[in-house]
Amino acid sequence: MRRWNGWGHAAVGYPLPDTTAAVLAERVGPGTTPRDATLPEVMASVPPSRLPPHPLVSTEPEVRVRHARGQSFPDLIVMRDGHVPAFPDGVAFPNQSEEVRALFAYARDAGARIIPYGGGTSVVGHVNVEPGDAPILTVSLERLQQLHALSEEDRLATFGAGVSGPRLEEQLRARGYTLGHFPQSFEQSTLGGWIVTRSRGQQSLGYGRIENLFAGGRLEAPAGTLVLPTFPASATGPDVREFVLGSEGRMGILTEATVRISPLPEREDFLALFFPDWERARTAVRELAQSGAPLSMLRLSTPEETAINLALAGHPRMVGLLSGVLSLRGIGPDSCMLVLGLSGSARNVEHGRRMALDLAGRHGGVRVPALGEKWKKGRFRSPYLRNAAWERGWGVDTVETATSWSNVPRLLAAVEGALREALADRGERVLAFTHLSHVYPSGSNLYTTFIFRLGAEAAETHARWLALKTAASRAMVAHGGTISHQHGVGTDHRPYLEAEKGPLGVAAIRQMLGTFDPTGLLNPGKLV
Amino acid sequence: MRRWNGWGHAAVGYPLPDTTAAVLAERVGPGTTPRDATLPEVMASVPPSRLPPHPLVSTEPEVRVRHARGQSFPDLIVMRDGHVPAFPDGVAFPNQSEEVRALFAYARDAGARIIPYGGGTSVVGHVNVEPGDAPILTVSLERLQQLHALSEEDRLATFGAGVSGPRLEEQLRARGYTLGHFPQSFEQSTLGGWIVTRSRGQQSLGYGRIENLFAGGRLEAPAGTLVLPTFPASATGPDVREFVLGSEGRMGILTEATVRISPLPEREDFLALFFPDWERARTAVRELAQSGAPLSMLRLSTPEETAINLALAGHPRMVGLLSGVLSLRGIGPDSCMLVLGLSGSARNVEHGRRMALDLAGRHGGVRVPALGEKWKKGRFRSPYLRNAAWERGWGVDTVETATSWSNVPRLLAAVEGALREALADRGERVLAFTHLSHVYPSGSNLYTTFIFRLGAEAAETHARWLALKTAASRAMVAHGGTISHQHGVGTDHRPYLEAEKGPLGVAAIRQMLGTFDPTGLLNPGKLV
Repeated sequence: MRRWNGWGHAAVGYPLPDTTAAVLAERVGPGTTPRDATLPEVMASVPPSRLPPHPLVSTEPEVRVRHARGQSFPDLIVMRDGHVPAFPDGVAFPNQSEEVRALFAYARDAGARIIPYGGGTSVVGHVNVEPGDAPILTVSLERLQQLHALSEEDRLATFGAGVSGPRLEEQLRARGYTLGHFPQSFEQSTLGGWIVTRSRGQQSLGYGRIENLFAGGRLEAPAGTLVLPTFPASATGPDVREFVLGSEGRMGILTEATVRISPLPEREDFLALFFPDWERARTAVRELAQSGAPLSMLRLSTPEETAINLALAGHPRMVGLLSGVLSLRGIGPDSCMLVLGLSGSARNVEHGRRMALDLAGRHGGVRVPALGEKWKKGRFRSPYLRNAAWERGWGVDTVETATSWSNVPRLLAAVEGALREALADRGERVLAFTHLSHVYPSGSNLYTTFIFRLGAEAAETHARWLALKTAASRAMVAHGGTISHQHGVGTDHRPYLEAEKGPLGVAAIRQMLGTFDPTGLLNPGKLV
Repeated sequence: MRRWNGWGHAAVGYPLPDTTAAVLAERVGPGTTPRDATLPEVMASVPPSRLPPHPLVSTEPEVRVRHARGQSFPDLIVMRDGHVPAFPDGVAFPNQSEEVRALFAYARDAGARIIPYGGGTSVVGHVNVEPGDAPILTVSLERLQQLHALSEEDRLATFGAGVSGPRLEEQLRARGYTLGHFPQSFEQSTLGGWIVTRSRGQQSLGYGRIENLFAGGRLEAPAGTLVLPTFPASATGPDVREFVLGSEGRMGILTEATVRISPLPEREDFLALFFPDWERARTAVRELAQSGAPLSMLRLSTPEETAINLALAGHPRMVGLLSGVLSLRGIGPDSCMLVLGLSGSARNVEHGRRMALDLAGRHGGVRVPALGEKWKKGRFRSPYLRNAAWERGWGVDTVETATSWSNVPRLLAAVEGALREALADRGERVLAFTHLSHVYPSGSNLYTTFIFRLGAEAAETHARWLALKTAASRAMVAHGGTISHQHGVGTDHRPYLEAEKGPLGVAAIRQMLGTFDPTGLLNPGKLV
């Protein structure tokens, strides 16, 4: 069963070691744990549904609570505190495309608006219910999980768009294939959600971003059905597939998606390397991204993040040993950790590994055994740490952006600096540290984690978070970063969209969406 | 100087060898050469301009003749025959973005429409002037050829969008870089034209299609200026860059484009291999495309095209020798020729070469020395052969599509069959043969050449061509092919667009374009 007021499976937890808590207390101050509302308390606050009965629609309070919000930090505040401003009036569970169309008609007749819902893992407000006069029908795609077709010759597989990451990979693995798409939300996010929010997987460097993996599909829109053919490429004007990517539930509901699959890797390696300093590490990673070496992942932590990760790991003896080994190789306190992934045919992995280790070695990189595999084991664990930190009184959130290589240092300094200063007027310290996890020949993303103390009240915690989020977002806009490389727009990034796309760009997106949803039935207030 | 009524430089010609002419005469019947109109004759037919004078606008008859049409087969018929139905009323040569904006105002005041013009190499009618009441101003971008910026660290270069292929590569080569984009029209086509028609280069397998190379830029539209940032990737909703790609002059005029560049290859190999039959050859090429081997090109001819290319090469002795050598290796009359390209670092080229030769060998592929280099030397020559064939009385044109691997045999048979039968009721034979030149893990393009006899009159030649084009296009729509993988839509593919995109897709493109050009100032009658 999913946790109703935080990330992940309710049965899975990673309590914060005392040594880690001590580090956080030292860096940002001691935390105070707020009182959590209980599920029965929140269920008791659910108002009567404004929707008429429908066989596909549940109006049970627990179902409505569980579909009210996503996984953003403000969502966490609200669900922990229990004062949820609005719930969906009902949640529908269609079994097929025709039922989605029927739900459009039902919602229209009821004067309702529709929020499409995949895994509910949005961290920017995509699935949130806002208070308003119109009833809200959330449409969950959790019954559309089936593998409909798989062609080995064409390397294409067609799924119901509500399929979750694990269910998708399980069905492909049984046939000897993988999609190779592993965002950190993998355990709960869905194929359709990945597509309409332009998701990136941890191994996108090798397997491609969702833009590359999404070949075509079926979208049910209020204005009709759109069937996207799965040509390998086409020059017939603007690509309508690209209209769907990033449409964030404003265009229609994707019910089926065909994706480009790969055989299960013959070999998969994750190597950990340490570099003497940030400058050399960043140069090595840029050159690796530009080398044409067949790598599946490059994930580089700044010296700050490397030090904090080691401190937070909570094994002082192991860290001491590692530092000793590294210092013998000339790598001191400014060391940067790189996790490098390789995945595919044994021959390509071996070739890529040799190219990468040679290149890294030229920049002072030293390989440390076992740590790469350790990273792999914990690859979906980070989101759980947010629960653990909350329970000790700290807030953990992330912001992310992307820019050209030459602008990485300036943007990194601006975003981290903005976060560290954002609560100064409140007398609060903020811990901020960054890694690059998605690199390209022309640039990189920047993924910054920030940690701060929760307030005594939900309102104060929200005010702190908003100050932090606003400061980081403004720094991105002012210093040449995109407002999102991998989380999407939703509600939280919407105020910054026009600065990036320009008024004409935003107007064009709005016009395009209006063709599919002329009356604004879908996902009001999100994206544009 | 460019040829005014056919492809290429006027000083460059490749006359048809008599042996080749004998093959064509045998396969489709003897040709009859129609009389060509002269340039002075056509200039004399140019009507007075309906545009008021403007310092940037030329109304000279020769300039208007030279910008009246592109390079489609119907364009060739019209220019050779000399009865050109319409000319631009003037041709403007802006030097900068601001002048493009000024020309929008000028055209609006004059009640004129604008046709953006890059290299004039469209083969589907993109730049054609159609007769009508409104004056036509063609806007040539030939003065926007400059390299504005190049970042080695970011591997990005910004050019005036009117830069031609050779000028672009020359400016990059001086700095040690290449774009790696070599469509067959390379000698005359332009960067802006590549972008707005979704061009594919011969080595797109390695360097990427123009979609991958175009990072951002500046578009002047009637509704305002659109500046596309050059982030390496972004998740901020639908990608407006993708709206520009394939917009075919209907959205605005691209004045600057930033592209992703690569270092000049340390090593570049083109290998020729022969396979015993089509089935084995196609399987080998599919497996190569799916292998992850770092290749820059795979170009596979069917047995029919292989035999005809050898026959048309016009060296019977050399062909006899080659056949003898191949038959010793078990490769007989059904042989298929593959040209395989590798380009990049010496290490990647060596790795890709080994992987490819091993895989090809497992499917009976045999390498023949020298032929790959010979292909490279003649890589931009094919379009010239159209002039040469015309002069001996034959028409040569091509159609192209793409589909999934499993559908390649069916679509290939349908397109070739449709072409071969298209003139049967006229008692004319048609020669049709195909290669795959752009392959993907999920499928391939099909590029089919067809040769037929010219009619005694231009109208008869056009009727024959139209019957052929219509038959091939209908076969694509009916048998699961895109209506264009690399030539675009223009006027010639427009009747088939809705079958591919669906009514909602076409409506959405129209709405999106309308945001940028609300009054339909630009390129009337093209794309949608």
